[in-house]
Amino acid sequence: MKKPSRDTISRMSLYLRALQELSQTQASPTISSLGLSRELNISPDQLRRDLWYFGQFGRRGVGYSIDSLKNKISEILGLNKRWNVCICGMGNLGSALLAYKGFKEQNLNISACFDADPKKIYKKKGGITIYPLEDMKKIIRSSRIEIAIIAAPVNAAQTIVDRLVSCDIKAILNFAPVKLVVPPKVKLRNVDLSTELFNLTYFLSQP
Amino acid sequence: MKKPSRDTISRMSLYLRALQELSQTQASPTISSLGLSRELNISPDQLRRDLWYFGQFGRRGVGYSIDSLKNKISEILGLNKRWNVCICGMGNLGSALLAYKGFKEQNLNISACFDADPKKIYKKKGGITIYPLEDMKKIIRSSRIEIAIIAAPVNAAQTIVDRLVSCDIKAILNFAPVKLVVPPKVKLRNVDLSTELFNLTYFLSQP
Repeated sequence: MKKPSRDTISRMSLYLRALQELSQTQASPTISSLGLSRELNISPDQLRRDLWYFGQFGRRGVGYSIDSLKNKISEILGLNKRWNVCICGMGNLGSALLAYKGFKEQNLNISACFDADPKKIYKKKGGITIYPLEDMKKIIRSSRIEIAIIAAPVNAAQTIVDRLVSCDIKAILNFAPVKLVVPPKVKLRNVDLSTELFNLTYFLSQP
Repeated sequence: MKKPSRDTISRMSLYLRALQELSQTQASPTISSLGLSRELNISPDQLRRDLWYFGQFGRRGVGYSIDSLKNKISEILGLNKRWNVCICGMGNLGSALLAYKGFKEQNLNISACFDADPKKIYKKKGGITIYPLEDMKKIIRSSRIEIAIIAAPVNAAQTIVDRLVSCDIKAILNFAPVKLVVPPKVKLRNVDLSTELFNLTYFLSQP
């Protein structure tokens, strides 16, 4: 079977968000592919092609059951289990991510934060303790942390990543605008906060 | 001519970043499509298909000129002109975005910030003044701001957006995890900070 692309997986998370909203706001228990795709400003074809990778959903003339599609996508994305996550770097970005409501709703549990600043360590923020980098191995093991978010400054990012790798972290989400090196066993994704802005400048530049 | 998809535009910004890095680090002035696609972990076919929308690049057997492809993509994304941007909401996320190095490098110029908190207004942060919402119309006009970033709390986001719309803002980038309503003339993009995390949980869940 052909594997879904990265973009398909990204759209799956958009579908999940939309279905979660619909299940709270919409009276009808079903939605057509046209209706769901309109919510997201994508084509119904794209939606059907994306879902096709994962099996048969919806019924002709009836549409998708909002709740069952929501649960199925949640399962596909691995969100039927709880993931323990740590944030490395407790500056503005790290603090914003810690406060971000979108994570906990999705079974993404921030269980620890790390920072190098002696003034920040062993204090709590939003109920979560900030540990020094030296405690990383201990905390990652005891809290069963599998995913790390890098919100550290550019010049500190690779050192932190090397340490995370030595603690057997499985996946890293990097917000620092720098290219990081990880061994193949560690999954790395980079978030570029300007990508979406470029989408806007592109559209504004169209004649 | 078929219009490029949103995902193509997003990948164009990845190509731009990679080319900007390559132009600083690589000795050779050219790169093959295989080389460039490897940098980004996408298929060479995808790269060629994306570029195809915008014309003829590179030469068979020679590859792409790094500098000329970089400049061309920058132009395609509208980054050959300077864009004035404002940030609405000077909490942790707004402050992180204000400090984000990735913007200025790309001709994205944060020219003003807005906040409702009397303790924050008329103070400067990173050299940029934080204005009260009441000054929005005046500042957006005098600073020729075309794009606004929403980094405000969920419950304040729509009110701010309505105000921005009445100030004739052209495009809005929304970081608040809430669905916003804008008239068709205003371009809206939403950033969901958990999308990339879902990509990781998906991969970690694969058998």
